[in-house]
Amino acid sequence: MKIDYKKELETASKGMIMIHEPKLLIKLIVRMIVRKLRVKHAAMILFEPRRNAYVLNISRGELGVKVPAGFTRFTGESPIIRVFNRREFRPLTFNPNAILSEDINRLIWHESIISNGNGNGKLTKELLCKVDEQMQMLNAVACVPAYYRHKLMAILLLGEKHDGSRFEQEELDFFAALASDAAMAIRNAQLFEDLKREADRNRALFLQTIEVLGSTIEAKDAYTHGHTGRVTEYSVALARQMAANGSAHFPEVFFENLYIAGLLHDIGKIAIPESILNKQGKLTDAEYEIMKQHTVRGVEMVAPLSLPKESLEGIRNHHERFDGRGYPDGFKGEAVPMSAAIMAVADTFDAMTSDRPYRKGLSKEAAMEEIRRCCGTQFNPVVVKAMLELYEHGKM
Amino acid sequence: MKIDYKKELETASKGMIMIHEPKLLIKLIVRMIVRKLRVKHAAMILFEPRRNAYVLNISRGELGVKVPAGFTRFTGESPIIRVFNRREFRPLTFNPNAILSEDINRLIWHESIISNGNGNGKLTKELLCKVDEQMQMLNAVACVPAYYRHKLMAILLLGEKHDGSRFEQEELDFFAALASDAAMAIRNAQLFEDLKREADRNRALFLQTIEVLGSTIEAKDAYTHGHTGRVTEYSVALARQMAANGSAHFPEVFFENLYIAGLLHDIGKIAIPESILNKQGKLTDAEYEIMKQHTVRGVEMVAPLSLPKESLEGIRNHHERFDGRGYPDGFKGEAVPMSAAIMAVADTFDAMTSDRPYRKGLSKEAAMEEIRRCCGTQFNPVVVKAMLELYEHGKM
Repeated sequence: MKIDYKKELETASKGMIMIHEPKLLIKLIVRMIVRKLRVKHAAMILFEPRRNAYVLNISRGELGVKVPAGFTRFTGESPIIRVFNRREFRPLTFNPNAILSEDINRLIWHESIISNGNGNGKLTKELLCKVDEQMQMLNAVACVPAYYRHKLMAILLLGEKHDGSRFEQEELDFFAALASDAAMAIRNAQLFEDLKREADRNRALFLQTIEVLGSTIEAKDAYTHGHTGRVTEYSVALARQMAANGSAHFPEVFFENLYIAGLLHDIGKIAIPESILNKQGKLTDAEYEIMKQHTVRGVEMVAPLSLPKESLEGIRNHHERFDGRGYPDGFKGEAVPMSAAIMAVADTFDAMTSDRPYRKGLSKEAAMEEIRRCCGTQFNPVVVKAMLELYEHGKM
Repeated sequence: MKIDYKKELETASKGMIMIHEPKLLIKLIVRMIVRKLRVKHAAMILFEPRRNAYVLNISRGELGVKVPAGFTRFTGESPIIRVFNRREFRPLTFNPNAILSEDINRLIWHESIISNGNGNGKLTKELLCKVDEQMQMLNAVACVPAYYRHKLMAILLLGEKHDGSRFEQEELDFFAALASDAAMAIRNAQLFEDLKREADRNRALFLQTIEVLGSTIEAKDAYTHGHTGRVTEYSVALARQMAANGSAHFPEVFFENLYIAGLLHDIGKIAIPESILNKQGKLTDAEYEIMKQHTVRGVEMVAPLSLPKESLEGIRNHHERFDGRGYPDGFKGEAVPMSAAIMAVADTFDAMTSDRPYRKGLSKEAAMEEIRRCCGTQFNPVVVKAMLELYEHGKM
């Protein structure tokens, strides 16, 4: 059965562009070569920009490549890399697209073509011998370079053919075209990976900064050590439980928005005088009115961030009550945004169970009893249900 | 001169993958068609996922496309989109890869092939007439669809050939292959754009959050309104001036790191009691010791962010002095990190020129005089030089 190289190349190249993981891409290319093209084994050496080295990435086939463990990285000084990075290799080999071990052997004895080590950019016998050695070590009978804009991106290493015959010109041309397409696809995939990494890193930086922002209040309010983190954790756990027991359907983004709201819910307290914030006795009515402003001040402070609606609602409305007697908006029942209703339970639970200098925290049992008692008045029953479930399962 | 379609396709496809702006990509493809392939004009309709619509992106050539302004978007209900989204079009046209206006005209009168509007997924005469109308409006004699995984990604619109001849099969096959490669390259470019946008958005979110974080101190320290922003602005201006006058060579990232340092330089003051922070008289020695801790506390607060070295140095060391008598580390001369040395000048200048409840701010002239006086003792002369230049140029 004759192999239609043109068709194989088209099929292979088509798929390559859309694979954005370099390692998976190489795996697929090498697998295709071994399965379809009657080569015993194949491998690829890939340039990895972040390590500034050529790395043997994968080897497939019945024999595999005889490479000592650890000997899988090649610097620019490695013979096989040097020879492909030198333009001279092309006219000196018998094939413009590849180095074949049989050609090297011929060249080594062809004193009139290669110089004897006197430089001038020509291939030396010494270098060719080293390339030959390296190819034997890699168990490769042919090496096909892949360039992208004159930069050596990869080297395709080919083992023997199953029928033991020589590589024909048509086959080598095919491998050269394949390697060239692969080099571009690999470069594309590497750029994708870099960009993805950058996006992820920037996202992580944003969330970490939100965390630091949320924790600033703890530097000021001595009595809330760890409060922000715990309220955030409880809130997300409550939402997950509500989704699990079927009482709510949240899109995945809801959890991140709630997480942000949890971290920032008390940020407005930065603007409240310490004398009120850290007062050990009961607040006067006037002081309480100032204290209540932390919800609205919080939203004002984070305004430049254009946070998602659910995050802002969590910050502004986490002191609303189910019966409408909360602040700042006096929302009632279902009108209280769900993120805020969840945080109200989490916030109260943590406030009740935490020690204060002037009083010891309640036990979890007592706090849960209080939350159950306030179901339908202070708290949304749907959230209380999830809270009781978490508590019963020992998760709260 | 015969056109080597295979070669043209290879050349075109190779370049396409690495162009990551969809619009530029289409421009290049369309230009190539018009220039090399003897077509009077060409255009491309591209699916834009974010608008969920097909949009006429570009039109090239001597005649252009006769499209009324505003009629450049096509929904899935548009005849030309409908016909390519229906599998039936293939066997019904005379060419498997394209719709030609001459074929449509033949089909419209070919009652035995098309149904007369009784549905069943067949092309109706009515739909074909509308497609014909649309192609006339677009001045296209051939439409070539490009699919990616069965999704219609784009339609290539071709005008007449320069010699007025029909499109040959070889040409249509070429355009189909080109359109197919283009569809994949366009999809790749769209994914790149999406990812780039995400990375940029996340970076902006991070920097905005840093800004909010920096401004929290102003919610507490009533006398520093706008101080953080001004110190940041002055610092970056000083660094730019130092680069401009040749006294320093900063990599571009230095300016962003300095910007972050400026925004966060006083963040540690959050941890300083208001009674000290807002005291109107002179601080006692004990109070001053506590106040000085804001540098170290600031670095502690932002530790989770793993900020760049220069940002951290700016926060920690912006109260160092050139003569070594500053805090917290008592660094001297060149040992004071440059970001901190720059911020020291910016911070002092803003503190001197700002009003306080108990005193009016100095004039800029008087403040500059003071900075000049402290050159070499409190301040690094290189920074003072830049400051004087900015002031002389009316930029400070």
